[in-house]
Amino acid sequence: MTTVQKVFSVVGSSVPRVDGIDKVTGRAQYVADLEVSGMIEGKFLRSPYAHARIRSIDTAEAEAMPGVVAVLTSTDLAGIGPYIGRGKNKDQPVIAMNRVIFAGQPVAAVAALDRATAEEALAKIQVDYEELPAVISIEEAMAEGAPRLHDFAERNLCAHHELVKGDVEKGFAEADVIVEDEFDFPMIYHYSMEPHTAIAQVDGEDITIWTSTSQAFGVRQDVAEVFHVPLSKVRVHVNFVGGAYGSKSGAKIEPLVAALARKAKRPVRVVTSVAEAMVTCRRHAITCKVKTGVKKDGTLVAKQVDIFLNTGAYAEIGPTVTGRTLTRILGPYRYPNLKINSYCVFTNTPSAASFRSIGGPQTAWATESQMDIIAQQLGIDPVELRLKNLVKKGEELRPKYRPLDTDLAKGLKLVTDKLGWDGPLSKTGHGRGVGFGTTDPGAPLASTATVHVLADGSVVFMCGTSELGQGAKTIMSQIIAEELRVSLDRVTIRPIDTAFTPFDRSTGSSRSTTVMGKALQLAGSDARRQIVELAMEYFECPEDAITLQDGAVIAAGKRITYGELINRHFADQGGELVGTGYAHSGMAPTPANPLFWEIGIGAVELSVDHETGKIHVQKYVTAADAGKAIHPLQCEGQDEGSAMMGFGHTFYEAYRWEGGQIINCSLVDYKVPTFDDVPEEFESILIEDGNGPGPYGAKGLGEGGIIPVAPAVANAVFWCTGARIKSLPLTPEKVWQAIRQARKA
Amino acid sequence: MTTVQKVFSVVGSSVPRVDGIDKVTGRAQYVADLEVSGMIEGKFLRSPYAHARIRSIDTAEAEAMPGVVAVLTSTDLAGIGPYIGRGKNKDQPVIAMNRVIFAGQPVAAVAALDRATAEEALAKIQVDYEELPAVISIEEAMAEGAPRLHDFAERNLCAHHELVKGDVEKGFAEADVIVEDEFDFPMIYHYSMEPHTAIAQVDGEDITIWTSTSQAFGVRQDVAEVFHVPLSKVRVHVNFVGGAYGSKSGAKIEPLVAALARKAKRPVRVVTSVAEAMVTCRRHAITCKVKTGVKKDGTLVAKQVDIFLNTGAYAEIGPTVTGRTLTRILGPYRYPNLKINSYCVFTNTPSAASFRSIGGPQTAWATESQMDIIAQQLGIDPVELRLKNLVKKGEELRPKYRPLDTDLAKGLKLVTDKLGWDGPLSKTGHGRGVGFGTTDPGAPLASTATVHVLADGSVVFMCGTSELGQGAKTIMSQIIAEELRVSLDRVTIRPIDTAFTPFDRSTGSSRSTTVMGKALQLAGSDARRQIVELAMEYFECPEDAITLQDGAVIAAGKRITYGELINRHFADQGGELVGTGYAHSGMAPTPANPLFWEIGIGAVELSVDHETGKIHVQKYVTAADAGKAIHPLQCEGQDEGSAMMGFGHTFYEAYRWEGGQIINCSLVDYKVPTFDDVPEEFESILIEDGNGPGPYGAKGLGEGGIIPVAPAVANAVFWCTGARIKSLPLTPEKVWQAIRQARKA
Repeated sequence: MTTVQKVFSVVGSSVPRVDGIDKVTGRAQYVADLEVSGMIEGKFLRSPYAHARIRSIDTAEAEAMPGVVAVLTSTDLAGIGPYIGRGKNKDQPVIAMNRVIFAGQPVAAVAALDRATAEEALAKIQVDYEELPAVISIEEAMAEGAPRLHDFAERNLCAHHELVKGDVEKGFAEADVIVEDEFDFPMIYHYSMEPHTAIAQVDGEDITIWTSTSQAFGVRQDVAEVFHVPLSKVRVHVNFVGGAYGSKSGAKIEPLVAALARKAKRPVRVVTSVAEAMVTCRRHAITCKVKTGVKKDGTLVAKQVDIFLNTGAYAEIGPTVTGRTLTRILGPYRYPNLKINSYCVFTNTPSAASFRSIGGPQTAWATESQMDIIAQQLGIDPVELRLKNLVKKGEELRPKYRPLDTDLAKGLKLVTDKLGWDGPLSKTGHGRGVGFGTTDPGAPLASTATVHVLADGSVVFMCGTSELGQGAKTIMSQIIAEELRVSLDRVTIRPIDTAFTPFDRSTGSSRSTTVMGKALQLAGSDARRQIVELAMEYFECPEDAITLQDGAVIAAGKRITYGELINRHFADQGGELVGTGYAHSGMAPTPANPLFWEIGIGAVELSVDHETGKIHVQKYVTAADAGKAIHPLQCEGQDEGSAMMGFGHTFYEAYRWEGGQIINCSLVDYKVPTFDDVPEEFESILIEDGNGPGPYGAKGLGEGGIIPVAPAVANAVFWCTGARIKSLPLTPEKVWQAIRQARKA
Repeated sequence: MTTVQKVFSVVGSSVPRVDGIDKVTGRAQYVADLEVSGMIEGKFLRSPYAHARIRSIDTAEAEAMPGVVAVLTSTDLAGIGPYIGRGKNKDQPVIAMNRVIFAGQPVAAVAALDRATAEEALAKIQVDYEELPAVISIEEAMAEGAPRLHDFAERNLCAHHELVKGDVEKGFAEADVIVEDEFDFPMIYHYSMEPHTAIAQVDGEDITIWTSTSQAFGVRQDVAEVFHVPLSKVRVHVNFVGGAYGSKSGAKIEPLVAALARKAKRPVRVVTSVAEAMVTCRRHAITCKVKTGVKKDGTLVAKQVDIFLNTGAYAEIGPTVTGRTLTRILGPYRYPNLKINSYCVFTNTPSAASFRSIGGPQTAWATESQMDIIAQQLGIDPVELRLKNLVKKGEELRPKYRPLDTDLAKGLKLVTDKLGWDGPLSKTGHGRGVGFGTTDPGAPLASTATVHVLADGSVVFMCGTSELGQGAKTIMSQIIAEELRVSLDRVTIRPIDTAFTPFDRSTGSSRSTTVMGKALQLAGSDARRQIVELAMEYFECPEDAITLQDGAVIAAGKRITYGELINRHFADQGGELVGTGYAHSGMAPTPANPLFWEIGIGAVELSVDHETGKIHVQKYVTAADAGKAIHPLQCEGQDEGSAMMGFGHTFYEAYRWEGGQIINCSLVDYKVPTFDDVPEEFESILIEDGNGPGPYGAKGLGEGGIIPVAPAVANAVFWCTGARIKSLPLTPEKVWQAIRQARKA
């Protein structure tokens, strides 16, 4: 299905990862591996209460301990901006002031010569708390008379978005069948292999941070705002990051580590534990109350949804996710009448952050589950029902948004063919399910890239994209090698150092290959243009007489290397050429949102052990629209990894609460998928229509595959057991009980 | 005398140094202040013999010492390129192989956990030497049957250059008076405050070096060549350098430190002592045999010179200096007939390197001394004699070279007026002398610069110029602030990191303000152009309706900051603009050499204590042609510092030799000028004709002022004592003896 646009030398090839050897030999250094001269260790004291007033903090005993360099409380932040938060939502104190509003919130921090001393010192800090009533669930938070977390937020409502199209009441009046369901998706953890880790060094106005982040420039901006210094004074280093999935977007622990380093007057490192990372951020728990009207023939006519997001203690990215759910609840289906309301609700829990496909799996859990409920009620094959209602390529999906840029029916056919779909129940009694992820991925614009062609023809480039394990270093190197017509081994990507690396908005929102990739493509072609100009002067020939090949220019049977051309241009003194590329507002189509539609399609076949409730996945097929796969193996890896991550929240994951505390915040108690969970058959399909706005027609992927997993599985469970489960995860116990319930009914 | 070209906001102002506070508070870190994680200490074992065969080296005892991590000899360099050297002169082994050819040459190196252990281990290395006859002076080196240092170099001749013009024999035939003299200028030391210091870390192909160098990119290239890796694999960090004066041009100790780190598998730091720095490099000792023919009226008609340079053990920069002496021996005078031969001679001494005005002070010592000898013989005032023979602006100075670009007579008048010249002997019996430095400063092309304008309007820029104390960080920041119309405090210069910083050829040869300054000016104006384009789009107005002021754009009474414009362009996501500027061969005039003429003029008035021979300088006037002084105070500082440095070789400095050893290689035995040596009256004059090829008409200075000092002083001594001294330094003992000699005659 690949549309070949041109002959590529390295783009489109699954080359060995450029950081592969560094990673397998352990040479790749993560933040916790770094040693900064004079560095000491920091630890945070965290609130044991979900909601409490802080009457006083006595740090005297901790401060007196040998080996303790500094003890920090909110009083140390006087005179600097004490709040952080994503975008305009600056409501989260760097460290708790007179109140804590979730269990795990930092109330003090210690810097000591070693970690054991720091931990011991934490125990010697006396905090006098006055416990207050806490709200953990949305119901509690929105209840009449509930404690209010933020003065401005009546009934703890953080944000509200609405999408209206047509007349939903009229639509329901025309419907033959109306279904109403409520679906619950719990809080879950990102589970990056590497918990939040940062080192900070503060010297006057100069602040240097080494951190595990997907957003070096976001950390720069947040820290600059907290400490009231220009962007140019904050230097953020990022090289290898052990996964992020949204948990490392924007400043997390960095401002507090910097404040601690400022007080300690020494570089301070803070390595959080998994338990600490789990209270640093998490995914939004979402409840969807969905009412859908449909004609007998399966045509969807109206949809009304109330979406409630449990956003936690602070706004963070909550308002954005709330807005995004308006599209995501639609799935890829055509509705003439819509009324979607989405409510973002504060609770006394850790703040919800970005998480692979914000609001996507939670809303698809409702929409795609309900599609099969409708199919069953109407007696229509679930695939047929979907095909009937799919928005077509070029058609509007959400009012005022860019029309759909992909052929979903074609994609669905690829997936169902691969699964061997001939109905939701196989001849052997296995259940089958399908689902879509059709999302506006955000992919915010704003990337700048530079490439330097050196006097020996070797090439280096600067790129603010974090290597999170996704293979960014490799993809970006391929783009530069392709544009400059050099072999990949001549190309070196520099680590991120915001002192030098030009701006990149973030690594996430499926934007890197598309947006930063575009900036790099333009930087590469800018440098190539300069080489061509030097060659035209050297050969005294027109541009079309020139061929670039393997780091050299060929014209009229003569050959000169890039290095020779550059040296000659710079009076035989060395020299180098710099190419610059921008991805900015001019890259966006009109209407501007989204830059592209991100597509994931999943289909599953499974059996259920009726005695234990355990689900066994026979086969899973996932498809993603890559536009153009620059590194097919990595694209498949992204899509498969995304689907496997979906297996986590489908089968295992959920924060468990007791008295305002998370009681399963360790990897013993909080299970995530492992290789044992890979389905017997696991297929991934890359769709390459070359229609993306990125380099060579690429578009983002990696966020689509996670979306349809849970509803596809729940639908398959339904078809082979009759049990319809509307809350995740699908634990054996829950499945077993649902089957018993279904049998009774 | 300033030609005002335009109104400047910050260029032309003596603003406080941007690195001033860092330097006075000690926050500025020099290489020896740096701590690289895991770093250990290295020391070099150096040959005690000026010439010897190495029969064997036994490192076993040293290697067995506790705390010793690695002991390196030449066998460890098998498989890598063992030679270094400037440009094409790759003749110097990184570490001595089977022979040493100067006392002080490294024969082994130790890396140990601390410096004391490393030093102790040096003593335990057994080197079996077979001593060979050595040549220290040019006479010894060129003598029949002298030991040959390099196979190719017959009679130890390293290089030979000749300049012929007209017919020198015919010229002498036409002359009324012919004078013949021989002048000697000894080996001297650069005396940077900071001796050579480097830290190296080697990890596979990746080599990282922190070093005190004036040529980060030269070190990169030299190290890449030695270790056979691409330029992109060698990362050189430079921030603050404690003086260089040519002693830190190109790789010096860095390849050996890297080889040691490679063997030790840990970062290694080597901090050399002053004694070690003195055997690392030095200035060329030069003997000039000068024969000049002149008419009775003072018109010069012919000059024949044989110049002999004692270049030391290896070629280093010797061939280039030898070539440069051909121009420099001319001074600023018109000769219809010339025959100049310059010979570069190997000796068993440390290699001579670049040194502030290569070949300049040594040749001016001859030419300007002899001008007064001629003046005395003809009974013409020395100033009159010079004025009569000065090359005029626009006239040829050296055949095929760019015509002179400055009015020397005007400059000389400024200086002699300031001194109150009315003859070489004052009414009070003080002697007076004048002299010129008129040189082709090299100023090689090849600089690339980038500037980033950030989303809050703060500005950062990358510039490969080393801050040697000369104030480069300040000058370069002024250029960027000027071009971008922002205040200086919004501008931050980054330290040099060749992983990111674009190429700069070197800091030296009076090139930085002119060549790198030009690249920065172009980078700044490139970024400014982008800002103007965004503003034209925003204001929907033509370019000429736009004013840039203090980081904002104003049009039609409205104002928008750069930051707001950038954010808007990058879809409100931050973003940044990158401007690039190149100084390359297109910047050079035709003929290409030199880019400009560098001018220094000096005049002195002094008295001599006839009882002790001690010279007392009443007044010294120095003038330099700045073209346009971007920072007048720093320009004056450069010119005054240059003159003061000249006082060193005039009065004190010379390597003293005994048995192939330097016997005064410590700062106790080797005196340099201090504040006590500043003349009673010390005036400096900046000439600003705005005619330089650099930004705003700037040209290089700092190398001119050192040139005329010694002959001006020696001439003044002659006029008030009758003693003519033709070898430096003018120690009291030598002056006293010369006076006695003159009295006898």
